[in-house]
Amino acid sequence: MKSSLSKIANKNYKFPELPIVKGVKFAAINAGIKQNDREDVMLAHLISGTVLAGVFTKSKTRAPSVLDCQTKINIPSNSEAAIIVNSGNANAFTGDNGKLAVTKITQSVAETLSIDLNRVFSCSTGVIGEKLPCEKIIKSLEPLKQGLCQGNIYKAAKAIMTTDTFPKGAFKTIKTDKGNVNIVGIAKGSGMIAPNMGTMLSYIFTDAVINQTSLQEILVEINEATFNSITVDSDTSTSDAVLIAATGTSNIELESNKQKFKAALYSVMLELAHHIVRDGEGANKFIEISVIGARSHKEAKTHAMAIGNSPLVKTAIFGEDPNWGRIIMGIGKSGASVDIKKIRVWLGTLLVTENGEVSRKYVENEAKSYMKNDKINITVDLGLASGAAKIWTDR
Amino acid sequence: MKSSLSKIANKNYKFPELPIVKGVKFAAINAGIKQNDREDVMLAHLISGTVLAGVFTKSKTRAPSVLDCQTKINIPSNSEAAIIVNSGNANAFTGDNGKLAVTKITQSVAETLSIDLNRVFSCSTGVIGEKLPCEKIIKSLEPLKQGLCQGNIYKAAKAIMTTDTFPKGAFKTIKTDKGNVNIVGIAKGSGMIAPNMGTMLSYIFTDAVINQTSLQEILVEINEATFNSITVDSDTSTSDAVLIAATGTSNIELESNKQKFKAALYSVMLELAHHIVRDGEGANKFIEISVIGARSHKEAKTHAMAIGNSPLVKTAIFGEDPNWGRIIMGIGKSGASVDIKKIRVWLGTLLVTENGEVSRKYVENEAKSYMKNDKINITVDLGLASGAAKIWTDR
Repeated sequence: MKSSLSKIANKNYKFPELPIVKGVKFAAINAGIKQNDREDVMLAHLISGTVLAGVFTKSKTRAPSVLDCQTKINIPSNSEAAIIVNSGNANAFTGDNGKLAVTKITQSVAETLSIDLNRVFSCSTGVIGEKLPCEKIIKSLEPLKQGLCQGNIYKAAKAIMTTDTFPKGAFKTIKTDKGNVNIVGIAKGSGMIAPNMGTMLSYIFTDAVINQTSLQEILVEINEATFNSITVDSDTSTSDAVLIAATGTSNIELESNKQKFKAALYSVMLELAHHIVRDGEGANKFIEISVIGARSHKEAKTHAMAIGNSPLVKTAIFGEDPNWGRIIMGIGKSGASVDIKKIRVWLGTLLVTENGEVSRKYVENEAKSYMKNDKINITVDLGLASGAAKIWTDR
Repeated sequence: MKSSLSKIANKNYKFPELPIVKGVKFAAINAGIKQNDREDVMLAHLISGTVLAGVFTKSKTRAPSVLDCQTKINIPSNSEAAIIVNSGNANAFTGDNGKLAVTKITQSVAETLSIDLNRVFSCSTGVIGEKLPCEKIIKSLEPLKQGLCQGNIYKAAKAIMTTDTFPKGAFKTIKTDKGNVNIVGIAKGSGMIAPNMGTMLSYIFTDAVINQTSLQEILVEINEATFNSITVDSDTSTSDAVLIAATGTSNIELESNKQKFKAALYSVMLELAHHIVRDGEGANKFIEISVIGARSHKEAKTHAMAIGNSPLVKTAIFGEDPNWGRIIMGIGKSGASVDIKKIRVWLGTLLVTENGEVSRKYVENEAKSYMKNDKINITVDLGLASGAAKIWTDR
């Protein structure tokens, strides 16, 4: 695995020793969905009382498993819960068979674990349009159940990988007067390797005590600043999903510590999001784009995404060419507000443009050496108002 | 030049013998804007009474020459007119100096040719953010004036090239009871070659008699179906411009022949647009995407562009991989209306999907051989209503 590690993966990164979140157990198995002998199905089992929240792809051709999760995520239930994920086949655009497969899998999980069907969440990632051999998954449920164990999260992180070159995990421990609250997360990334369709999946587990409404609100907010602020190839998968489960086993209420919880969740989700960007197919540079001074956060993000998704900008960065004209082009095409004379652009700490033209302080050779870095920071100040956004991408 | 011709350029294409449009003369010169010894400035001189119309980039960071053209294009005047274009420098994001350069150039053209300043249209294409040496252009005006000649359009087509591998021209002759009406056009394309920013420019000339309002309406309509229906790298230049000039020298009114005129203009503009796509940097396949059965033309085009601009779709086509799941992904992410069970997708004449899944008639090996063609046709029937659009791109 080492030899094929993405060029801009953190060289010192290894899957962290994640703290145990009581109330959730994991198992993984090779069910034969993938063509190789790697684990390709993971099961997470959550104790009764676990609160769940989720965010999902907005694609109009989303997979039946996503539609099923969306239907169930807000249904209150005190039952135990389960998350079942397979890699190797996305079960997307598979017609009535696809829906049937989701029903069969979730029903079998519910029966095997004796839990409410509304509390079984399934995800599939891999190739689109091929029939999912769901009986292989169903046959694996009994051994998966036998293998369930608190310490198995690393196996789960490996089982959800498709074109990822490394398993992705992150955690944060919140210290409070009453003791510690843990947040742990795993994720898989998206790439452009044929014939697989890249999909972003993440599963986050915490022992915090929190109600469903708060958890959903916080997840949406933090997701916007993390997973929704990365772009690998500007495409939207049919299967993207982020689920968070709060088991409540720390017995620590978070109403008075909401900001701390948000900050910790942000840290976990941002770390996972950055791992995904760094693991993009052929990724060569890690790019951070900050836009400030926009009319609103939304406009700032529109500008940042227009720059980050521009093939011309990406080509310039790949070629280590400080072609800042393309950044101006990206700002111009985004559709969000611009006053051309107020735009200031920095490459790292080098001021490139001001007053609607190249800055007098700009020295091309300095910019050229800056572009040789593995991490490139582009900062744009639109000088209009206080809207700001930050996104990450690769090239 | 032959050896570096784009792979999917029509091998038999050579710049056509364009018919003379009376009332317009051309000249081109090497003014030293470009680093090589090619012509880099062209001048077109139009007789008194010529009617002009134009469409321009919507970029919010558009160049001062574009803003100047937009201000002037609807001002009525009976004066002679001129179009001056340089390649090698886009004069974009060049601050007050940039505006001043446009003023100086257009004023000098007006003086040299003794025409109304409001009738001088300038365009610049090339690198962004570098000061345009406008005195080099101004110094060339006298020799350009001396060189003006009806038959010089080929030279003009060459002078506006930047990264183009061949000059682009097209024409159509409309036969009427009263005689012939000619439409001729030249264009330059856009590519991703550093350090130039690709720009699309086109100049069309006709001897038809037509009023400004009609000409502008027709240009907007035909532009939507031609230049606005191609996408090379999904980016929007700061300088794109299409100008049409009707000299009226045929003395043939087009009120009764509007449909014929539209059809002929469509033919000229579509041919130029296709040349631009075929001349995209690294272009390997010419791709036509037809979307039918959409809620509206606009929604059809949104779907077609989402497919055509998807890096995942392009990568699959480049790899000759019939990965139709990515077409479904593109449809899903476009934001326009979809009923997943009604989507039908064809690769060429091969039906790939129906009823929300892969078609029973689909044979992957047939699709694989189809993907080896230089021209790939993707057809999507959304099955919702009668909205349709067709776009072209390359990979």
